[in-house]
Amino acid sequence: MIEFHSWARNTQQRMEQVLDTLLPATDIAPHRLHEAMRYAVLGGGKRVRALLAHAAGELCEANPAKVDMAAAAVELIHAYSLVHDDMPCMDDDDLRRGKPSCHKQYDDATALLVGDALQTLAFQSLATPGLCTDPGRQLEMVNLLAIASGSRGMAGGQAIDLASVGKSLEQSELEYMHIHKTGALIRAAALLGAHCAPELDQERLHAIDHYAQAIGLAFQVVDDILDAEADSETLGKTAGKDAESDKPTYVTILGIDHAKQLAQELLDDALAPLAPYGELANQLKQVAYFITQRSF
Amino acid sequence: MIEFHSWARNTQQRMEQVLDTLLPATDIAPHRLHEAMRYAVLGGGKRVRALLAHAAGELCEANPAKVDMAAAAVELIHAYSLVHDDMPCMDDDDLRRGKPSCHKQYDDATALLVGDALQTLAFQSLATPGLCTDPGRQLEMVNLLAIASGSRGMAGGQAIDLASVGKSLEQSELEYMHIHKTGALIRAAALLGAHCAPELDQERLHAIDHYAQAIGLAFQVVDDILDAEADSETLGKTAGKDAESDKPTYVTILGIDHAKQLAQELLDDALAPLAPYGELANQLKQVAYFITQRSF
Repeated sequence: MIEFHSWARNTQQRMEQVLDTLLPATDIAPHRLHEAMRYAVLGGGKRVRALLAHAAGELCEANPAKVDMAAAAVELIHAYSLVHDDMPCMDDDDLRRGKPSCHKQYDDATALLVGDALQTLAFQSLATPGLCTDPGRQLEMVNLLAIASGSRGMAGGQAIDLASVGKSLEQSELEYMHIHKTGALIRAAALLGAHCAPELDQERLHAIDHYAQAIGLAFQVVDDILDAEADSETLGKTAGKDAESDKPTYVTILGIDHAKQLAQELLDDALAPLAPYGELANQLKQVAYFITQRSF
Repeated sequence: MIEFHSWARNTQQRMEQVLDTLLPATDIAPHRLHEAMRYAVLGGGKRVRALLAHAAGELCEANPAKVDMAAAAVELIHAYSLVHDDMPCMDDDDLRRGKPSCHKQYDDATALLVGDALQTLAFQSLATPGLCTDPGRQLEMVNLLAIASGSRGMAGGQAIDLASVGKSLEQSELEYMHIHKTGALIRAAALLGAHCAPELDQERLHAIDHYAQAIGLAFQVVDDILDAEADSETLGKTAGKDAESDKPTYVTILGIDHAKQLAQELLDDALAPLAPYGELANQLKQVAYFITQRSF
């Protein structure tokens, strides 16, 4: 575990540098937009998606320097989604990563443009010519990220989430929503990390895909548990927000004990396909523990 | 001219079909989001950017079937920007292409997600593996579209525009804003069309680039003239909006006569580099007349 914490800290620091380089400097016009983009991305977050990309890259023996850009693209998509989700017309959340959310720190119009420009920057980064020795595979990666982020992935999940407010959902409907809203991008993070390997091994890709789908759901179950149990200071965002706004969560549907049991089952399900890979799968296993045992 | 009108109408109809195929059907979940995406894109607009892509493709002897996807990607970026620009926190416009704007027809949250998902779909479409025989060139095209759309292109121009409300701008500052806000995407449309050719001819690319930069500015000058002169019914969007909201325009800075003179100068500047290409440049010339002589 000490080894994992050191690896995770190094990877987080490394990502901070990669993102710092990718984001336009504040002395480039338009200054305020670039300042707000940096505010929304830098200096916060656990970079779970970047850790997943790097851990999957390790299982596939990819060069970490190649994984950096794929991981950064996923983090930029994630950051854009948080900025837009926090806006008054969506979740209307004033707090994010322990700081005022982007539209509170700046204004609604700036936050809208920040999200838009961060999404664009994600695709620009992933499409940087020469990033991958095989441009055909790099195009597939751009396509994969787009499918995961769009109306049949993350943005679609957000639309289903909006439509669910005040409704009573079955567990299967909640799962369907989360597979899109958070699961699709988490899955893309792991698959993109794997795609950075010199050779694509289909068996490893399938193992990572299975792992990522299970851990993506586990992530959301744990988020709902944390949201129900933690206070805002620990969480870095407004606690109890979902239950308060009458959104269905795993805790409201299953109760806290069954939700914790489900998180454990999903963790076991995620780890199973990694068994054949021994030490190569170490970081993926540890990321899974990190995600599911954040507080219990 | 009859020939051009027939070409333009055919191209517009063709684009409608391409976009209809690219946009997820309304019977695919999330239904309301997909319905709203189709509402925002289909059945309206002059498709000026698609016409430019196809006309530039013709100068470079590209196969029109190859140009379709590049043209569609640019139209999707344009459509996303209109949906977000019309939102209450931006221009707060109720009318677009003669219909209620997306957030009026649906709601603010849906409009936000529609814009987000249309941007993603643009990159997904342009990154479709196998679209271009040379995947390296296709990656360059994705990168080109991203740079034109992002914080140093279209989204950046929108930020500069927001910051200019109520301020008195010099003509050079107004030009700087429009080069980003509308010029960058118009330029990208023409360049992407040219990139669909079997071989990249640098001289033709430079001629198209010069043309596109001049015609991009001309487009905005004419827009300002139309906004000042037309009524809402003719325009299909709220007329006089910019002057009313105290935004500087070419007409408020130069007066209507000088603005018309500037449009003519920009048209001449756009046409000059096309001279060596004879009939191959016919459609690009006609698109330039179409853009600058929409009403005078």
